[in-house]
Amino acid sequence: MRPQDVIRKKRDGLSLSREEIDFFIEGVTNGRIADYQVSALLMAIYLNGMNEVEQQALTEAMLKSGNILDFSDIPKPKADKHSTGGVGDKTSIIIAPLVAACGVCVPMISGRGLGHTGGTLDKLESIPGYRVALSASEFKTVLEKVGYAMAGQTAELAPADKKMYALRDATATVEAIPLIVASIISKKGAAGLDAMIIDVKVGNGAFMRQEDRARALAHALVSTGNSCGIKTRALLTDMNQPLGGAVGNSLEVEECINILRGEANEAAAPVLELSLELSAHMLVLANVDKTIEAARQRLQGVLDSGKALECLQSNIEAQGGDPRVCDAPGDFLPLVSETVKVESPRSGFITKVDTTEIGHAIAAIGGGRVRIEDTVDPTVGFTSDLKLGDQIRAGDAIGTVYCADTAAAAEAARRIQAAYHVSDEAPAKLKLVKEIINK
Amino acid sequence: MRPQDVIRKKRDGLSLSREEIDFFIEGVTNGRIADYQVSALLMAIYLNGMNEVEQQALTEAMLKSGNILDFSDIPKPKADKHSTGGVGDKTSIIIAPLVAACGVCVPMISGRGLGHTGGTLDKLESIPGYRVALSASEFKTVLEKVGYAMAGQTAELAPADKKMYALRDATATVEAIPLIVASIISKKGAAGLDAMIIDVKVGNGAFMRQEDRARALAHALVSTGNSCGIKTRALLTDMNQPLGGAVGNSLEVEECINILRGEANEAAAPVLELSLELSAHMLVLANVDKTIEAARQRLQGVLDSGKALECLQSNIEAQGGDPRVCDAPGDFLPLVSETVKVESPRSGFITKVDTTEIGHAIAAIGGGRVRIEDTVDPTVGFTSDLKLGDQIRAGDAIGTVYCADTAAAAEAARRIQAAYHVSDEAPAKLKLVKEIINK
Repeated sequence: MRPQDVIRKKRDGLSLSREEIDFFIEGVTNGRIADYQVSALLMAIYLNGMNEVEQQALTEAMLKSGNILDFSDIPKPKADKHSTGGVGDKTSIIIAPLVAACGVCVPMISGRGLGHTGGTLDKLESIPGYRVALSASEFKTVLEKVGYAMAGQTAELAPADKKMYALRDATATVEAIPLIVASIISKKGAAGLDAMIIDVKVGNGAFMRQEDRARALAHALVSTGNSCGIKTRALLTDMNQPLGGAVGNSLEVEECINILRGEANEAAAPVLELSLELSAHMLVLANVDKTIEAARQRLQGVLDSGKALECLQSNIEAQGGDPRVCDAPGDFLPLVSETVKVESPRSGFITKVDTTEIGHAIAAIGGGRVRIEDTVDPTVGFTSDLKLGDQIRAGDAIGTVYCADTAAAAEAARRIQAAYHVSDEAPAKLKLVKEIINK
Repeated sequence: MRPQDVIRKKRDGLSLSREEIDFFIEGVTNGRIADYQVSALLMAIYLNGMNEVEQQALTEAMLKSGNILDFSDIPKPKADKHSTGGVGDKTSIIIAPLVAACGVCVPMISGRGLGHTGGTLDKLESIPGYRVALSASEFKTVLEKVGYAMAGQTAELAPADKKMYALRDATATVEAIPLIVASIISKKGAAGLDAMIIDVKVGNGAFMRQEDRARALAHALVSTGNSCGIKTRALLTDMNQPLGGAVGNSLEVEECINILRGEANEAAAPVLELSLELSAHMLVLANVDKTIEAARQRLQGVLDSGKALECLQSNIEAQGGDPRVCDAPGDFLPLVSETVKVESPRSGFITKVDTTEIGHAIAAIGGGRVRIEDTVDPTVGFTSDLKLGDQIRAGDAIGTVYCADTAAAAEAARRIQAAYHVSDEAPAKLKLVKEIINK
């Protein structure tokens, strides 16, 4: 078998056999297939797609390309959440302790921010001392002790995915459904999960802007996840505005801690709402509760009792971070006092928020990564108390940009101001959870 | 501008601007764009195509990626022929001296064989001492002295094409019309031509098996060539059987010399017929003759007078080969006496020849290249006196395989025997020149 023969088949719109897919992924993993051949196949898959059988074979081949974590001696159901990414999307930091506090083991493999989206690992690293580069044994120790652990993908876990992801980013083949599905499920499968909830974002701040594309992705993720032996469900959720009141690493961690402390402002409400919904589905998938309603009650219990906050604090301590951040987030997180107000140029209703642009504006001044090799400034961010449909008067604050470099902050404020559309008529209400996808 | 943004545009089926194409080809040439990005773009071009404006911009960018040969001080029209490749296609070796003997300067940049097709450079190298790796100044010296010169593409000539061609071969993106056109015309344009005839092969031994695809390629070549300032015409010619009586490097050179000596057998007739047609069009395009008929007469003159043979002999001498090969080809070419007869298993008419399979059978035993790095055995080959429609009796010879390794020869003979289909009904006659394409 030659790589170009496999490429030719997909180029011509034919289905690849399991043997051909295994051959290719093995070649990616051991380096025998050149990067330029991999990227040609990626583009052919992008343009010609894959059927369900191919999708399954691709995912399994990538899953088996590296080590598979074995947590079978932890006597709890294992579950995780994955989000396709958005702006201000910080629910992992809340969901992991919530669900762990309910007796589920959550081995969470997370990512870094790139482009307009943030990443859980970057957010957690704003906590002084917090380490996300855990060895497999450290990861397991934290998991056993705390109930959840947060780490980045190691070289041993789904290495084919790691190589292919870097190539996809450089070759405009990121948004292909079969490649997204294989990438997500292979990593999750390698973490030895029983259940998984997937938050498929849809809207102008998501990778999938069209609802039909997002729905197709959700179905593919659920069916492939289930075929790999992971009980999988997806929620289609709105990403037409930043989730919650904060965008930016330290500010988002602060918002999460405040939520778990029961001290969050009104702007943070959607973060908690979505976190509880995703967590409730995880508890049901993990057989902890029979109904979503029972799961919601259990979650509200661990939230109100402070057990979830305690769980977060234990995790922070176990991963080397300063646990006092949970007692007084404002005192221990790196935050700056330099701010620039984003003013509304006119009176009216907020009818549209160009969410991707907000992500880019914050990334451009150091709050995220423009290129994969960039470092992130945890202090940079944006907060807003306003949502789509809210009323505002000319000159009032849409929100606040945080950045020690006030010239940069002013530039970000200008971009964010332009990203908020204010008009005379109130827009229709958007539902946060649009659809639940079970198959 | 980033490479992935250009890739994304073509991936989405949009047209690339001249600036984007220039940026990409410059990046290919200076190595700043990674091979894996180039191959992703190649696949996107393969699947989404290019319009005429893009085709033109791509060709010009590749043409300008290296040196352009300047023969303006040679006071003759400059013309060349290009073939899209087939089995037994040796017309270059006849056309160059024929046309040069008529006063046209022929700077011929040729290629090597790969897969089922042979290459002019490999054929010429069967002549003892013949050198095809000429420096630019050597090439010009031969051109001035003889009227034509034959060489391979150097690193300085259309280097972007050289890099892209290697990638196309490894990524199943060879057969894309915009890429084929840009590759051919950029090389020919860099050789400073006034006129060019293109032999677009169609049939089961050609890259283009379907006539509509071959015609589309011919139109694209002619229109792009003309837009680049080269008077270009294409002939659509049949490749449903090997051209002439010989396949294999030494055997094909022998056939060519015999044709120019006027001593060829009947099986060689189509080689001469096609060479004269292509040459006649070259003379008309180069303004040597006003009509094809006049050009044919002129060509017949230099053939009958021996001037064309003399021209071949001067070229061989000028490029380091043994000129005595023209006096007694059988004595000076590397030929073997070990042969295996290919028998017809039944009586009937030859109704179909799987031409590609013949090319592969000969390449597999050393007569061509399976991989680009293979060396070629000039002695290996196949001869046949039979054409499509000819009658044969069971047990009679379809032809003869030449190879010092008679076990290998027997294997090739077996494959070739299966490639000849013999049935009871005579097939319809095929025209050698199917169509002339002027725009």
